[in-house]
Amino acid sequence: MGAQTKTNKTSKEEILEINRMRKIELKAKGLKSKKELAMLYTPGIADVCLEIKKNATLVDKYTSKRNLIAIITDGSRILGLGNIGKFAGIPVMESKALIYKKFGDVDAIPISLATQNKEEIINVIKAISPSFGGINLEDIENPKALEIEEELGQTLDIPVFHDDQQGTAIITLAGLINALKILKKDRNVKICIAGCGSAGTGITKLLLAYGFKNIIICDSKGAIHKGRTDLNKFKEEIANQTNRENFKGNLQDALKGADVFIGVTGVGNLIKKEYINRMNKQSIVFALTNPAPEIMPNEINDTNNVAIIATGRSDFPNQINNAVVFPGFMKFLLKNRIRKITLDLEILAAETIANSVKNINKMKIVPGVFSNIAKNLANMKI
Amino acid sequence: MGAQTKTNKTSKEEILEINRMRKIELKAKGLKSKKELAMLYTPGIADVCLEIKKNATLVDKYTSKRNLIAIITDGSRILGLGNIGKFAGIPVMESKALIYKKFGDVDAIPISLATQNKEEIINVIKAISPSFGGINLEDIENPKALEIEEELGQTLDIPVFHDDQQGTAIITLAGLINALKILKKDRNVKICIAGCGSAGTGITKLLLAYGFKNIIICDSKGAIHKGRTDLNKFKEEIANQTNRENFKGNLQDALKGADVFIGVTGVGNLIKKEYINRMNKQSIVFALTNPAPEIMPNEINDTNNVAIIATGRSDFPNQINNAVVFPGFMKFLLKNRIRKITLDLEILAAETIANSVKNINKMKIVPGVFSNIAKNLANMKI
Repeated sequence: MGAQTKTNKTSKEEILEINRMRKIELKAKGLKSKKELAMLYTPGIADVCLEIKKNATLVDKYTSKRNLIAIITDGSRILGLGNIGKFAGIPVMESKALIYKKFGDVDAIPISLATQNKEEIINVIKAISPSFGGINLEDIENPKALEIEEELGQTLDIPVFHDDQQGTAIITLAGLINALKILKKDRNVKICIAGCGSAGTGITKLLLAYGFKNIIICDSKGAIHKGRTDLNKFKEEIANQTNRENFKGNLQDALKGADVFIGVTGVGNLIKKEYINRMNKQSIVFALTNPAPEIMPNEINDTNNVAIIATGRSDFPNQINNAVVFPGFMKFLLKNRIRKITLDLEILAAETIANSVKNINKMKIVPGVFSNIAKNLANMKI
Repeated sequence: MGAQTKTNKTSKEEILEINRMRKIELKAKGLKSKKELAMLYTPGIADVCLEIKKNATLVDKYTSKRNLIAIITDGSRILGLGNIGKFAGIPVMESKALIYKKFGDVDAIPISLATQNKEEIINVIKAISPSFGGINLEDIENPKALEIEEELGQTLDIPVFHDDQQGTAIITLAGLINALKILKKDRNVKICIAGCGSAGTGITKLLLAYGFKNIIICDSKGAIHKGRTDLNKFKEEIANQTNRENFKGNLQDALKGADVFIGVTGVGNLIKKEYINRMNKQSIVFALTNPAPEIMPNEINDTNNVAIIATGRSDFPNQINNAVVFPGFMKFLLKNRIRKITLDLEILAAETIANSVKNINKMKIVPGVFSNIAKNLANMKI
């Protein structure tokens, strides 16, 4: 191992300055003459309206709906910053829109809500959905986020992508596929996941669907197991599908004999090196919490049982970054008019990402955002 | 007089073809390097979020809110096409966004709602308002539109512009100011308004505020007067402020001795030439319904009591067109962080528009969309 220690320190002033740009800005188009004005606006536009009135599917042909999505947050769990309200989360959503545009040519409109009430959020998204081809749920606290996604996924006729869950799951599985290939391990590995919010839930569901059978997932109270009385319905479902030996201990003990650790706790510096030492030889550590991972790579560089380390950070090798996934995957959904995001589609995306890395090695298990990965995802065949 | 008869006929196919462009498309910006990605997205963006968390007013500095508006419709009264639903109205909203961008450099996002329920519409707009610097209500039926505007105008901390009401009122007053100047008439003229929806209501309120005292407004049942029992609260308010002689007849009789006719009925070819003949000498006819006006200009070209004619159409002189107003006026509101649109501001805009026409004459009482009017409005001083 040998994680880079370059940190690319940027001053706060420099960051604030670049973020003053108007990130959400439309292109000016058409209207070059009075004739075009009359064709694009009244009276000509009435012809277009009437075509769509006759045949609603023409909304895709004659409006921007086909390539337009809304990135929706209620500000209740922005990054690792917590519930910072209706304004303070907007910069994240706007930057996400920039990434959608640059890498996926998806036009994404950030909408930060004035309400944090689950039913109201669901009603608002349903109400504004006719203009959009897709919805990206973002940085909403749990279990509310999972409940909103479940309800909307069943009722809306456009795809509802929950990046914290599905995006994280896809890139994590992609990295895991390549890491196991390098280490010549198979789907019988013991996987220990820490954190059972959107990311932990999404990863667990996807790993199960991919065929991993030996998974233990821990929340802040320890292993999730059948018989725990404090579980919400999402965790109960997980209890029924994981932890086949019904282990009841804590995270430190769950790590004993694990081949893979996946940390999505939201808590930096959670794990001491001695617990990582309990894992099997040639093990894999994905410490994905940002900005401070569950354990820093340089703390385990000399831990000789760990073979591959990944984090969410750009200043270490193997950055597990949702931005690799969402622009291309959303473009794929929009292009193919896919209404429901299934686990099969998530697996297809993860395999596409894994296969896109040439010459995989311990320091390179996933592609970078600036690779061609978004195009590869957008062009997936179903 | 001498209205142009050139009609600029464009084929429906040509109109449909140009309207296939993706009208709502974002500009790609930034993200030119991994360093910029780290500054614009995680981890750097957290600094920006925390600045706004500390001081909410910084949302204007660090996000696009300051120049971003939502154009909101429920599809219940699109152009003169009626209630055509959640998809068929989107082309109008998108074209409006193009006009906002080209002439006012305002970034406008069309949002077509899946609900037509008044309370739900109000709640949705309140809920999505944090991301936007302004709201444009569009093509919502009455009295719902007026009620929504009233409620939101009182509760939101961003301006709520109701184009069908305020935009139409501003451009109508602008045209009237110049028409009266040409004819050397004053504010004592008798004005007869036909139509008491959003436009008629907005025009009446604005003309009253400007100092016109002799106004009769008719809806489909005849003159609005005190004592009518079928009036909603908006019409009742109008009954108390207009029609000082409490005239109770129909439109045809109200036109007797009128100096100004303003038609905003939504009904084409409503008025026969013989009724226009009842108006005073040197009278003014604004037949504003689109595409077919209340009376076609060529029908009254030989009516020697009419001195000035205006319509909503681009193929006749004196086009009374909201597109002259909304891009520049909204830019003005956004630039100056104006929260409430007052009648004084509407008068300021109307006078700015009227004064912007050089060498006014009977065929040229208002500026065209392609003039510099949007800049003049945006730069108004308060």
